Amino acid sequence: MPGTSFFSDMLQGITERGRKLLFSASRSADSIVEADLETLCEMLLSSRGEASGMAIAAEILGRWSKLDSAGVEHFLQMLSEKFGADTAKLDKAVDRYRTEKSPAAIIALHKAAEPRRQELLRRLNHAPSGTAKLVRMRQQLLASNDRSDDDRALDADFTHLFGSWFNRGFLTLRPIDWSTPAHILEKIIKYEAVHEIAGWEELRRRLAPADRRCFAFFHPRLADEPLVFVEVALTRSVPSAIKDVLDEGREQIEPDQATTAVFYSISNCQEGLRGISFGNFLIKQVVEDLRRDLPGLRNFVTLSPVPGFARWLTRARSSEAEPLLTEEDRKVLGLLDDPAWVDDANAANEIEHVLLPLAAYYFLIERTPEGRPVDPVARFHLGNGARLDRLNFLGDRSAKAMQQAHGLMVNYLYKLEDIEMNHEALAQRGEVTASPAVKSLLGRNGDSRRGGRNEMSRPFAQVMNDRIGGGRK
Amino acid sequence: MPGTSFFSDMLQGITERGRKLLFSASRSADSIVEADLETLCEMLLSSRGEASGMAIAAEILGRWSKLDSAGVEHFLQMLSEKFGADTAKLDKAVDRYRTEKSPAAIIALHKAAEPRRQELLRRLNHAPSGTAKLVRMRQQLLASNDRSDDDRALDADFTHLFGSWFNRGFLTLRPIDWSTPAHILEKIIKYEAVHEIAGWEELRRRLAPADRRCFAFFHPRLADEPLVFVEVALTRSVPSAIKDVLDEGREQIEPDQATTAVFYSISNCQEGLRGISFGNFLIKQVVEDLRRDLPGLRNFVTLSPVPGFARWLTRARSSEAEPLLTEEDRKVLGLLDDPAWVDDANAANEIEHVLLPLAAYYFLIERTPEGRPVDPVARFHLGNGARLDRLNFLGDRSAKAMQQAHGLMVNYLYKLEDIEMNHEALAQRGEVTASPAVKSLLGRNGDSRRGGRNEMSRPFAQVMNDRIGGGRK
Amino acid sequence: MPGTSFFSDMLQGITERGRKLLFSASRSADSIVEADLETLCEMLLSSRGEASGMAIAAEILGRWSKLDSAGVEHFLQMLSEKFGADTAKLDKAVDRYRTEKSPAAIIALHKAAEPRRQELLRRLNHAPSGTAKLVRMRQQLLASNDRSDDDRALDADFTHLFGSWFNRGFLTLRPIDWSTPAHILEKIIKYEAVHEIAGWEELRRRLAPADRRCFAFFHPRLADEPLVFVEVALTRSVPSAIKDVLDEGREQIEPDQATTAVFYSISNCQEGLRGISFGNFLIKQVVEDLRRDLPGLRNFVTLSPVPGFARWLTRARSSEAEPLLTEEDRKVLGLLDDPAWVDDANAANEIEHVLLPLAAYYFLIERTPEGRPVDPVARFHLGNGARLDRLNFLGDRSAKAMQQAHGLMVNYLYKLEDIEMNHEALAQRGEVTASPAVKSLLGRNGDSRRGGRNEMSRPFAQVMNDRIGGGRK
Amino acid sequence: MPGTSFFSDMLQGITERGRKLLFSASRSADSIVEADLETLCEMLLSSRGEASGMAIAAEILGRWSKLDSAGVEHFLQMLSEKFGADTAKLDKAVDRYRTEKSPAAIIALHKAAEPRRQELLRRLNHAPSGTAKLVRMRQQLLASNDRSDDDRALDADFTHLFGSWFNRGFLTLRPIDWSTPAHILEKIIKYEAVHEIAGWEELRRRLAPADRRCFAFFHPRLADEPLVFVEVALTRSVPSAIKDVLDEGREQIEPDQATTAVFYSISNCQEGLRGISFGNFLIKQVVEDLRRDLPGLRNFVTLSPVPGFARWLTRARSSEAEPLLTEEDRKVLGLLDDPAWVDDANAANEIEHVLLPLAAYYFLIERTPEGRPVDPVARFHLGNGARLDRLNFLGDRSAKAMQQAHGLMVNYLYKLEDIEMNHEALAQRGEVTASPAVKSLLGRNGDSRRGGRNEMSRPFAQVMNDRIGGGRK
Repeated sequence: MPGTSFFSDMLQGITERGRKLLFSASRSADSIVEADLETLCEMLLSSRGEASGMAIAAEILGRWSKLDSAGVEHFLQMLSEKFGADTAKLDKAVDRYRTEKSPAAIIALHKAAEPRRQELLRRLNHAPSGTAKLVRMRQQLLASNDRSDDDRALDADFTHLFGSWFNRGFLTLRPIDWSTPAHILEKIIKYEAVHEIAGWEELRRRLAPADRRCFAFFHPRLADEPLVFVEVALTRSVPSAIKDVLDEGREQIEPDQATTAVFYSISNCQEGLRGISFGNFLIKQVVEDLRRDLPGLRNFVTLSPVPGFARWLTRARSSEAEPLLTEEDRKVLGLLDDPAWVDDANAANEIEHVLLPLAAYYFLIERTPEGRPVDPVARFHLGNGARLDRLNFLGDRSAKAMQQAHGLMVNYLYKLEDIEMNHEALAQRGEVTASPAVKSLLGRNGDSRRGGRNEMSRPFAQVMNDRIGGGRK
Repeated sequence: MPGTSFFSDMLQGITERGRKLLFSASRSADSIVEADLETLCEMLLSSRGEASGMAIAAEILGRWSKLDSAGVEHFLQMLSEKFGADTAKLDKAVDRYRTEKSPAAIIALHKAAEPRRQELLRRLNHAPSGTAKLVRMRQQLLASNDRSDDDRALDADFTHLFGSWFNRGFLTLRPIDWSTPAHILEKIIKYEAVHEIAGWEELRRRLAPADRRCFAFFHPRLADEPLVFVEVALTRSVPSAIKDVLDEGREQIEPDQATTAVFYSISNCQEGLRGISFGNFLIKQVVEDLRRDLPGLRNFVTLSPVPGFARWLTRARSSEAEPLLTEEDRKVLGLLDDPAWVDDANAANEIEHVLLPLAAYYFLIERTPEGRPVDPVARFHLGNGARLDRLNFLGDRSAKAMQQAHGLMVNYLYKLEDIEMNHEALAQRGEVTASPAVKSLLGRNGDSRRGGRNEMSRPFAQVMNDRIGGGRK
Repeated sequence: MPGTSFFSDMLQGITERGRKLLFSASRSADSIVEADLETLCEMLLSSRGEASGMAIAAEILGRWSKLDSAGVEHFLQMLSEKFGADTAKLDKAVDRYRTEKSPAAIIALHKAAEPRRQELLRRLNHAPSGTAKLVRMRQQLLASNDRSDDDRALDADFTHLFGSWFNRGFLTLRPIDWSTPAHILEKIIKYEAVHEIAGWEELRRRLAPADRRCFAFFHPRLADEPLVFVEVALTRSVPSAIKDVLDEGREQIEPDQATTAVFYSISNCQEGLRGISFGNFLIKQVVEDLRRDLPGLRNFVTLSPVPGFARWLTRARSSEAEPLLTEEDRKVLGLLDDPAWVDDANAANEIEHVLLPLAAYYFLIERTPEGRPVDPVARFHLGNGARLDRLNFLGDRSAKAMQQAHGLMVNYLYKLEDIEMNHEALAQRGEVTASPAVKSLLGRNGDSRRGGRNEMSRPFAQVMNDRIGGGRK
Repeated sequence: MPGTSFFSDMLQGITERGRKLLFSASRSADSIVEADLETLCEMLLSSRGEASGMAIAAEILGRWSKLDSAGVEHFLQMLSEKFGADTAKLDKAVDRYRTEKSPAAIIALHKAAEPRRQELLRRLNHAPSGTAKLVRMRQQLLASNDRSDDDRALDADFTHLFGSWFNRGFLTLRPIDWSTPAHILEKIIKYEAVHEIAGWEELRRRLAPADRRCFAFFHPRLADEPLVFVEVALTRSVPSAIKDVLDEGREQIEPDQATTAVFYSISNCQEGLRGISFGNFLIKQVVEDLRRDLPGLRNFVTLSPVPGFARWLTRARSSEAEPLLTEEDRKVLGLLDDPAWVDDANAANEIEHVLLPLAAYYFLIERTPEGRPVDPVARFHLGNGARLDRLNFLGDRSAKAMQQAHGLMVNYLYKLEDIEMNHEALAQRGEVTASPAVKSLLGRNGDSRRGGRNEMSRPFAQVMNDRIGGGRK
């Protein structure tokens, strides 16, 4: 329907007005108005909450939305401290379980261990726009700097509920294009987190051409708020640089001529839903949909940033004991310190030969203490079952990319029939799946480039072998 | 969009086809095909479930949907027995809690006490039509006759999840009228539980006239399935008999002439959602919406059946010691045994004088062992904060109503400003709120009708006083 | 949007209410109220009509809708007599044309020859629901029994305007299925003109199964009124009897198994649009859409009634001089006079052998005075470019079909690549395109059945040859 | 539905693809491909056009859309010259009419006088996007510089058809706001003809705030193309300068606080529909809708440019004999020649006193040769029945407004109850309705400002009186 929200429910709005009627009608309105927030929360959990729950919930969220930051802090603290599990009940349930161990005792124990605020949050969700407000409430919680144990407990409750409410089964994939309502599109501009959209003209270039696509997950209750979106370019080859994708003057193609779908930007939109995983489902769903609509597509790849690479490299360079780097490597890498290197073909060439093997190492060998890939974007795609397909030297010359990754970009390849195998290789054995070309870079360092020339190269291969052998511990 | 589902999501359907692509593409398809259901469930919970979860979930539900009743029984038993909480972990969490009692320990305990099948059900929900299938799965569980402790534990998990997923905040109120798609309307015919709808012509009479309304709650994921609906008549007075509402020849009025909205039928639709409460929210929302659209409305009442009355009365009559009934009462009530009484004005008159005070007693005084009203419909409306407004002798002469309640119907009155007070009176003090007219019937029995004439009447008043005095114990 | 009209424009309704505001506000309201209908029509055509046109138009149509039949007759007569062309102007334009013959003079002549009521009808169309009301107005005109020249002139104006307004470019094809709103579906029941739909259960059988389809043309301004619709069965062979299509117990098939789409019922819905041709476009559009959606479909055929056959045959039998019929033919056809023949296999067999060649003659040879096929359904399909594919003896045993066509049904075949050729053969040369099987029936009469046995058969072939040779003159 | 067009018909798109099927299937495809455009047009009008009309129409429009400007010129010329009325038929019809003068003869005459291209255009409209293409075709016609008689005749046919097709009864009013699809919004930017919209941020300021509205008429067949739109500001007083409306820093108000709706920009969008009047209906409809939604609104006014004023004034100044202007007036008006006057308070003050009475004269007295107001915007609003309410000196300081009107803006007032009276005063008696304040300006010139000081002032009053007395001749 024109003139109203994208696909939100016209009737939801009614609730808001209706609530006012209900609320003003209630003889108990006075007692609600006079109560403080904690009292209101207790009221909402009490039997009164059954009769006037919506009015009380709306009152609580209405007041919360007007709190200043100290008020918010205090409100969250109250939720943490006053609405945890009822420990008296819990102790009793524990005792019963210890004597009985029956299914009923476990149910009772599970219920008793549930913090009271879970039910409180469920009832707050009855209020108009309740879900959106609770998502914002968690955003506030995550923003507070020093998180106590209590905060973490409160966050665990949000996470538990949101995990259930934002179950993939409840999400809807929607195409975003140039016929999408403007108030949704301006959120795409706002939430784009990888390659900034400078304004409406650029947005149009990303959405309107026939060889560009964009898809987002929406939740029925957050109707005008994308949760996560992906931008896709349809091309005839796998691009190695972001400018090939975003260039204004690029040649457009007909979608049915495309062989390749390039996921060049994936952005989470709701800070308050951090940790609730959608991107995994989004990419797979989009691959499926594109395959069906455009049977000519054969490759599904990303063109991705490497946000952790420069930091990792700096650490490696600063560690004098790092056996990965030879003297010569260090010298070459020193060229990076002058930002002008990027325009000096010789310097760039030298750097490329040192940087790419190190990048291969960064992806294939390096691990977090928990044994996972160190790069966050790599963790996401490799964890989804993609394989690391190509390293693109100077794939992105933007200031941000130069600073984060010395311009490096990579392609991850999504091959549906290998996804599970790749995923399991990583999950079970800690192995990153990569193309032969990427894997060969590991060897190149030791062999072709410096082989024989320099004793310093030995430790590199050695360390590699040690670490590869060791895998995840 | 014409020609597709009511308001379901066109893109959901894609998932089904997409799944086939995904599934057939997977190299692990063979291993899935060969696995038995229990193995598949374990697979879905494992790390493989992260990569191929949707395909596995779809496979499980696809097989489940083809099980015969023995297979279903076995499947549910497997869920009960094999996917409960991990007791080893739980014991450890209990031990930690007993030494530590920290928020973190409580979180851990809560998590450990959660049966594994909760996550299993959440992941099954990823499959196409997952939610609808899980609702049907619970329906099967509820249908099994002898429910073990394990069954009850399994049901507790369904109830917990459904309570969260079908939170009122996620439901949408939709008007149902003669422009509603036929495939929704045929469900209204099917699910109507109070006054049967004989066919499409009758349905039309209930939906098409301007002085008739119908509203239903829908869940976005069960797009074409009403969860609960209410039928409303707009009238100029409070009707005392259902024929005044349903009569083909009744005079229609313009909606803005109506002073009264009569909720004459409320039906839950999804057996698999038994115990998840919607009706309470539905009535209040509909009251709000109607008030806004038709400011001339002043009364919001029901015209309701009394399904438990005849059974209660039979028990009372069969108990020789029942002090409520005098000899004369018993004689008059004996007239009920000949179904022809209804057409005998004298008999009906006599019966009315005995029946109505007893009905008042049934509503106002009688209680379940838990101290709640004995009539299920009364429990619902009084629990919502309505008041018992009028008893309508022979309000419904249908066979069903004669058998359940000797034709008795009642009006419950929803007065928004009193709802909370009435609710609290019942919840806190066990008091049923009723109109003076209904309350006076209690006295009439003892006083006006038989007062002085008969010593037998004494015990009635006495019992009443005893019981009123006692209230809920 | 659920709960509102199928796809009508929410904003149209606003016009109605808005009009009241406008109208009541106008200082000229009194003069409008007091004017008679003719004065109002003049007012609408005057300059006042520019300022208050919508209010005046609405007033005229409001009063018209309340006229009794005498009033309607009078109103139509007024339109005929008082709102024709302005003959003074016309005479002047004729004079100018005769001296000048310039494009400008022709424009002026064309304008002057336009009856004033054309502009009147265009301005009446501004009123809320104007189009629907004008369609009904023409329906009234067509219903009047003795049509004068003036009536015909008035009808010519309606036809001219409706032909422009209901241009195929403005029509929308919509699928009609079991998810279509009930108020549209009840019109399908009402307007079905070929095989009556007995009620909602039968409607469901025609719309809900996956191997059944229905499509209708709609006009944006008559949003909830189908203009014409076609019912389609998807089958694995060309059916020869309507019971194979409509039988409750028939075996359903998956749509993608179907090879054949059978158009078994086409109904015009709006009597007021008689003569405005839609069916031609409808069938071709549906063929295109089905071909695209179900590539397995290879045959597009009708299963059609022969509404003029029995009447034609009666005339032939009653004409003693008719050389088509031998004595023996007449004897066999005498069997038709006892309705029980249909259950007498021998009689039926004899009849079939006489009837089918005559039917072939009826379709292939017989012509109206204008040289067109005599059967109205044949005129439609053959005029569209279909070919006559098969005669089905006793294809429909319903009372209506027995009475109209002695149970005969036929299949017309729509082969897109031949449509134009077939159409031209008929339009240019008066030739009906038919399958060899049908054409051979012409010969059969003379040859196989009676060949040699009876001299009477000679004239049949002879007449045929004479007439075939002659074609359309 | 997200991701597709605003409210266009999904099924229209099908036609395009379907056409290809149809076309490629036709055995006559070759003959179509080989024919030239004139032959194709003849074919479309012939009986072949009935069978393959859509394919032929699509072919014609497909080729037309690729013509260069010479080709277009040639194509239009062909339409003009070859597809006029059939003069042989016309002569016969004229002869018949002259002898007979019956309704039938008039019908025949009307038909014969209709140029053949009217039917041609109607059949071209069957093609996919036919309507949009025909609108563009007329735009080409209007763009050709030297228009012959034949061109005018062709244009008369377009105008006749478009007047019928774009009848107000077929138009839909839609709100345009920030939730409107971007591809519609970019057309608002493009088509805005009064106060340029500099980009998306400015568009947002005009559409998103609660005290701003925009409405457009759409035609169902040109679904994504606004025909005309109006921008509305809701305010608490009648603004006298456009900056009060458009200023970024202006104070926003709640819609229900507004007393005044200001129509500050009305733009026609489709050059090809020039002369088909929508704006009149648009304003009245919007007034009605706003009145209903916001009962607090009491004034409906415009804030309008005066595009013809500066040109008129230049002419007056250049005519030495013009008795309107005294020597002193001319001296003061000489200040206008230095654009810096606008920032010189004294000069501005002097100018105001001379300019406003002249502007009053321009509106109230001056007339075109046909006796209509000379200002085109005035003709529109006064013709709609608005009254001239206030002259706003320096209401718009933009370069365009300074150049067109020395910064003058005016308010027209739409008072529904006076619209018809005002309209009739102008239409019947040539009188412009204006507020007393505006009318008094006429006198001021002669009286208050220069009265007695200067004999030159006499002629002004005298001329005025002469002209007022004379009115329209």
